[in-house]
Amino acid sequence: MSAVAADAVRWDAQRLAAWSDPRLSQVEAALSQWVGIDAPVLLGDAMRYAVLDGGKRLRPLLVFAASEAVGGQAEAALRAACAVELIHAYSLVHDDLPCMDNDVLRRGKPTVHVKFGEADALLAGDALQALAFELLTPEGDIAPAVQARLCRLLARAAGSQGMAGGQAIDLASVGLALDEAQLREMHRMKTGALLLGSVEMGAACAGAVEPASLQALRDYGAAIGLAFQVVDDILDVTADSQTLGKTAGKDAASDKPTYVSLLGLDGARAEAGTLLAQALAALDRSALADTAALRALAHMVVDRDR
Amino acid sequence: MSAVAADAVRWDAQRLAAWSDPRLSQVEAALSQWVGIDAPVLLGDAMRYAVLDGGKRLRPLLVFAASEAVGGQAEAALRAACAVELIHAYSLVHDDLPCMDNDVLRRGKPTVHVKFGEADALLAGDALQALAFELLTPEGDIAPAVQARLCRLLARAAGSQGMAGGQAIDLASVGLALDEAQLREMHRMKTGALLLGSVEMGAACAGAVEPASLQALRDYGAAIGLAFQVVDDILDVTADSQTLGKTAGKDAASDKPTYVSLLGLDGARAEAGTLLAQALAALDRSALADTAALRALAHMVVDRDR
Repeated sequence: MSAVAADAVRWDAQRLAAWSDPRLSQVEAALSQWVGIDAPVLLGDAMRYAVLDGGKRLRPLLVFAASEAVGGQAEAALRAACAVELIHAYSLVHDDLPCMDNDVLRRGKPTVHVKFGEADALLAGDALQALAFELLTPEGDIAPAVQARLCRLLARAAGSQGMAGGQAIDLASVGLALDEAQLREMHRMKTGALLLGSVEMGAACAGAVEPASLQALRDYGAAIGLAFQVVDDILDVTADSQTLGKTAGKDAASDKPTYVSLLGLDGARAEAGTLLAQALAALDRSALADTAALRALAHMVVDRDR
Repeated sequence: MSAVAADAVRWDAQRLAAWSDPRLSQVEAALSQWVGIDAPVLLGDAMRYAVLDGGKRLRPLLVFAASEAVGGQAEAALRAACAVELIHAYSLVHDDLPCMDNDVLRRGKPTVHVKFGEADALLAGDALQALAFELLTPEGDIAPAVQARLCRLLARAAGSQGMAGGQAIDLASVGLALDEAQLREMHRMKTGALLLGSVEMGAACAGAVEPASLQALRDYGAAIGLAFQVVDDILDVTADSQTLGKTAGKDAASDKPTYVSLLGLDGARAEAGTLLAQALAALDRSALADTAALRALAHMVVDRDR
């Protein structure tokens, strides 16, 4: 089946919501139960403020969709979904600090350091990262091999060759003229690694996955990882701060290289479309039984307005 | 055998060095091979600067000693030793930041943020934490159950109910009058959790440990974890900055509660002696075959001058 043909049977918004809403409720309930509980009071408050009741939860949804496509274990998927969201949340807290992007607004609310002070924001981010790995390694029902694989994938996605490494390149690139390959590599690490990692972690919730299907999921994850950032760059130019829930126009103002500055607005939109087609084509090539949720999420990444 | 009798056969400095030197060399070589490699250049440099060629490596030595006492797997112990040192190193980098202790000197050298800037120091700390969990989960020879247990222990020791939580209490306690129980709880989390975690991780390098021995190791780890902080407080008053390799007298200057401010210098010294005796007595109660290294390290913690 071609990507276009597959596209013809894609879920509408209502069908996607019917799939995602119960999973999002499950994630919210689990995060509320697991984050900041029994932590010293201010630290626990800062952790919960950073994580609860905010964000699109795209990464958890990718974990669920990939896990369900390969028949992954539900408890492992829930923990992986929460863990990857904690890493995402901690990165935002640290990213917003004065020594980084110095942002005061996130998801329409004051950033963590504005509300709790810089020191507690720093510690809350640190503690959220540790908690992510704690959630992945419960005593009990999840096979140790799955636990270890989930930790490995998350650590790689978050570390110096993934998200943190991409942020360091981003820091160093302000005012520089990156070419498209360099920009792509930076974003593959900074944003793409954790999105790809979400898909890989979902796949890791099954004991074993047929190699071709695993590769298809990886190709899908890499494509939507980049597409996400291309659309982010577009929205930074086209959306207003209220819709975004964060300060719009920051990249242009800080002279950061973006897909829009490199390809123009039309070029960036075309690139997002190409990456979407690549993601869908990867799923077409696979022998995975049910990829409807993955497809719908790919469309959501590209069509989103915030 | 009583603690005092056991003490009579304790290793002298030469015997301890003969045990620890080859293990320290192994840790240095492994860290040099694993830290900051293939990271973006400045980030990798900052990570290596924070980790290599510095510190007493007490935590790695505790991992080795505990692992050897229970017959743990050598490769697991080496990785656990490095992982716990990475967590320690990242905590120092973040602790030294201007929004925390604002320290410019560490181990006799400029702190990471002084040398690389605040943003790269923040990211280097974040990446070191992720790397710790990556080191614990290699594809290959270590049993997945051991990998998962090591990740669980490290995450708990580092997180909001361990090190990060203790730091948050420390932050909130400046200028407050803590009583001894509160001070003890703060230090149990801030410093003790990772030292205890080192001992527990060493024990986790064996497939299974007899429960009474595991409890003895935990009691040992908890006692030396507190003893370490009591001595730290003593040295903050009695040692000079050059010997310490960091700024002396900071706690008193910043009006932080310490064991010395609470118990006086003689009282703090007596407390350190009591904790040492507790640590040795815990080992005496155990059926562990070879505890000489653990004993020597307990003495080293209490007798150190930096």
